[in-house]
Amino acid sequence: MTDPSVPSAGYVVWFTGLSGAGKSTIAAVLEARLRARDVLVYNLDGDDVRRGLNRDLGYTDDDRVESIRRISEVTRLMVNAGLVVIVAAISPFREGRQNARDLFAPGTFIEVHVDTPLEVAEARDTKGLYRAAREGRLLNFTGIDSPYEAPLAPEVRVASGTTPDAAAEAILEVVASRGLRGPTVRP
Amino acid sequence: MTDPSVPSAGYVVWFTGLSGAGKSTIAAVLEARLRARDVLVYNLDGDDVRRGLNRDLGYTDDDRVESIRRISEVTRLMVNAGLVVIVAAISPFREGRQNARDLFAPGTFIEVHVDTPLEVAEARDTKGLYRAAREGRLLNFTGIDSPYEAPLAPEVRVASGTTPDAAAEAILEVVASRGLRGPTVRP
Repeated sequence: MTDPSVPSAGYVVWFTGLSGAGKSTIAAVLEARLRARDVLVYNLDGDDVRRGLNRDLGYTDDDRVESIRRISEVTRLMVNAGLVVIVAAISPFREGRQNARDLFAPGTFIEVHVDTPLEVAEARDTKGLYRAAREGRLLNFTGIDSPYEAPLAPEVRVASGTTPDAAAEAILEVVASRGLRGPTVRP
Repeated sequence: MTDPSVPSAGYVVWFTGLSGAGKSTIAAVLEARLRARDVLVYNLDGDDVRRGLNRDLGYTDDDRVESIRRISEVTRLMVNAGLVVIVAAISPFREGRQNARDLFAPGTFIEVHVDTPLEVAEARDTKGLYRAAREGRLLNFTGIDSPYEAPLAPEVRVASGTTPDAAAEAILEVVASRGLRGPTVRP
């Protein structure tokens, strides 16, 4: 057990939104900004986790719930370890995101809704997944045949058309306003 | 995705051994020693993980394999994040420990066998678990009705009777001899 007398300086920035909304892009910009300040930050990418920890899970509702539960628990462990953790995962269900939030100290969970409309994300379709879903070759795809429950009160809402830089800046303002500072590494 | 140009300074110290062998005790001493040097270290305790990430798993052989797989993947993510990670888990199967080792760069996985004989661990029985297992109230207990496969070539073998301080010292010698240094936090 990690010594509870060591205060945790970590916090979580949790991105939610449709596939292709731009979550990973903004997450990467935010990560770079924090790293430039020597903050010890980790970008827990949903796709990366799917290749490792969650590789036994698919895309049914039950599997999505379990996937987000595991990501939440891993994030908890990492924040306990003193890291700033960025999560970029569709995380379509309100209850799953609330369960995640409940694992953390008040004020240390920053939910960011990358609110790109379905039409825009589908028009981009960088990975060709929407097309596959529309053609019925890909099942349980969020926004097509699996629901997305938008956050009711996210800490940050990124409107469509916002640049990744502006989105990262808005998040960093919330971080600063809450007095959160991540642990820094010696350069 | 975390920037791959940022070199990872992390490594893993993986304790294996019977229940009651003394894994957590030595892990706590090692953690304190590293923390005193401002090394950013996290002690991933098997029992703690059982209350969170792995709370859907029991103690059958299949569940033990899955438990160690998840702990391995979480450890990989944490080491990628630049942490030094200490794992204390019975991890009874050779194959599971090898699979864990294979996730890490050569030389960065230090396996420590806390080689306390069954008779000694059972005589201690601090949690009363051996008694429960002998009485048949607790099934699939390692060493009683579930096998323990001792490591063939661990980096460190802690013989019964070694003090926790001496064990931690032996591990730190291996760490030093391999030129491993964890990331340090600004005090």
